[in-house]
Amino acid sequence: MPGKVKPSAEERLIARYFRPLATHPGAFGLADDAAAITPPPGCDLVLTTDGVIAGVHVFADDPADFIARKALRMNLSDLAAKGATPLGFLLALSLPAGTTKSWLAAFARGLGEDAKHYGCPLLGGDTDHTPGPAAVSIAAFGAVPHSKMVRRSTAKIGDAVVVTGTIGDAALGVKLRRDPRLAKRWRLSNAEAAALVRRYRLPQPRNALAQTVLCYASAAIDISDGLVGDLDKLCRGSKVAAEIEVVRIPLSKGARAAMAAAPKLIETALTGGDDYEIAMTVAPKKLAALRRAAKAAGVPVTEIGRVRRGEGARFTQEGRALNFARPAYSHF
Amino acid sequence: MPGKVKPSAEERLIARYFRPLATHPGAFGLADDAAAITPPPGCDLVLTTDGVIAGVHVFADDPADFIARKALRMNLSDLAAKGATPLGFLLALSLPAGTTKSWLAAFARGLGEDAKHYGCPLLGGDTDHTPGPAAVSIAAFGAVPHSKMVRRSTAKIGDAVVVTGTIGDAALGVKLRRDPRLAKRWRLSNAEAAALVRRYRLPQPRNALAQTVLCYASAAIDISDGLVGDLDKLCRGSKVAAEIEVVRIPLSKGARAAMAAAPKLIETALTGGDDYEIAMTVAPKKLAALRRAAKAAGVPVTEIGRVRRGEGARFTQEGRALNFARPAYSHF
Repeated sequence: MPGKVKPSAEERLIARYFRPLATHPGAFGLADDAAAITPPPGCDLVLTTDGVIAGVHVFADDPADFIARKALRMNLSDLAAKGATPLGFLLALSLPAGTTKSWLAAFARGLGEDAKHYGCPLLGGDTDHTPGPAAVSIAAFGAVPHSKMVRRSTAKIGDAVVVTGTIGDAALGVKLRRDPRLAKRWRLSNAEAAALVRRYRLPQPRNALAQTVLCYASAAIDISDGLVGDLDKLCRGSKVAAEIEVVRIPLSKGARAAMAAAPKLIETALTGGDDYEIAMTVAPKKLAALRRAAKAAGVPVTEIGRVRRGEGARFTQEGRALNFARPAYSHF
Repeated sequence: MPGKVKPSAEERLIARYFRPLATHPGAFGLADDAAAITPPPGCDLVLTTDGVIAGVHVFADDPADFIARKALRMNLSDLAAKGATPLGFLLALSLPAGTTKSWLAAFARGLGEDAKHYGCPLLGGDTDHTPGPAAVSIAAFGAVPHSKMVRRSTAKIGDAVVVTGTIGDAALGVKLRRDPRLAKRWRLSNAEAAALVRRYRLPQPRNALAQTVLCYASAAIDISDGLVGDLDKLCRGSKVAAEIEVVRIPLSKGARAAMAAAPKLIETALTGGDDYEIAMTVAPKKLAALRRAAKAAGVPVTEIGRVRRGEGARFTQEGRALNFARPAYSHF
């Protein structure tokens, strides 16, 4: 047909790999300038953005489906810590020249499986070529009852400090990923080493606990830059102190084995990034109910200390305050 | 204080340059994991994401405030074309090592001025270092009355095709930016050449017309990849054709001068990117009201053709169909 215009390469890429993920009616099959969602009545929208750059937050040779899952799960973890139910996400994808169809197919498969599993559909996106490394930026949206988003800045003196799961596995895992010979030095079984690396590569955000956080936490933060730094942010935001007993911090079997062999790894575990657990403060009278709800959700929770007057998070081991050379993970 | 943790470099950067922009109460001063906004009652949220990479969508040596403004305005343009009123945005910023304080200060200043001017406050963000070029990804949110987002896919046979402003200036401007000697070949005055380059560097999104688009347009799209390609997307989405008379397409004085000297530039003007005007379809009985509303908003609108049965956008000049070698701008 004279003057007929063919779809661009970008449109074909989106149609092939990403349109199948855009299952929400307001995504309009990714065939519009924007998406539209009807907010749940009586709810606030919770908005967050986080992303990964190959070679910075993930290894450039990590499988594409892991990179996709990690980028989405980092955002899901923020929603979980705020007590929000996921509504959907926008994807900004920057691809180096030479990105293969199989990379894209794996990326889209991982992203789609997680979007379905976590009930967080793809609503729209932007795809570009870059002379730099592959980069994935996600903006995710959730809902909470009006004015009920769980903040960082609302911890109360006397509250218990509670964390989900185990702390520090990913920080040990990334060391093992960089240097697999450490497994032997740390006297880890193959299974223990593999479990630590897996915790680094694929976060397990605690969205199953979001309703519980919403009901029982006075304040919460997702642990993405290490327990020490993130808990300190919560304390400074709330103008309180937290006194944490290191011996109570939950550690996995692998982490405990590694620390038995190399005790200084406790600092790595507490200040490394990528836990994607939730640190929260809970009024003592709500602790029992929180524990029951967490058990029902299948998420381990552990009390590790108390909120006190003062400023910032303090970690004590055998009665002595711990100082950290590099208190929080930062890409800066 | 023993165990006291200092804010990270990333936190200091955010506090210094971006916290002053986070004027919306739901941004919590950028001091939480997420933002919270209360959607206007009876409204849908309109969500879009777009971004720029230095060296790809902007020149790496463009001033930082222009880069910031362009990234935000690309998203504002999407909201305008959908009839949406801006609510706010999330910023994902990737910075190369060696990014200077003056670059960041200029970036934040440009972003803040535009956020204020367009009523679209910064709600949250993510800042990382990258081994690649500087990259800015923005996710922007707006509101429309429930189910009223103006779609691409709802043009009706018989509708008029209307565009805002003038077409093709930015596509000519980027050529002049790359090779300033073209100004002489195109017989442009210094003022005409500067005006075309300015149209490339700093889009003028048509948010002043958003309410008018919402009231009168049957379908709309923002022209970011060139009139030919974007109008074709609207037509294919609506399963209709558009017959456009090239002679009616509004051109600026500089564009007309350039085309008088180099007639083939009409193809550049119609297929190049970065116009950030709105193409819309309007029922003929609503045209007069649209014109009045646009005049009141101070935005020029021009009827350039009609929607017909068929598929895709067709451009005719002196009775002959135009074919385009490269019908739409694509970064792929």
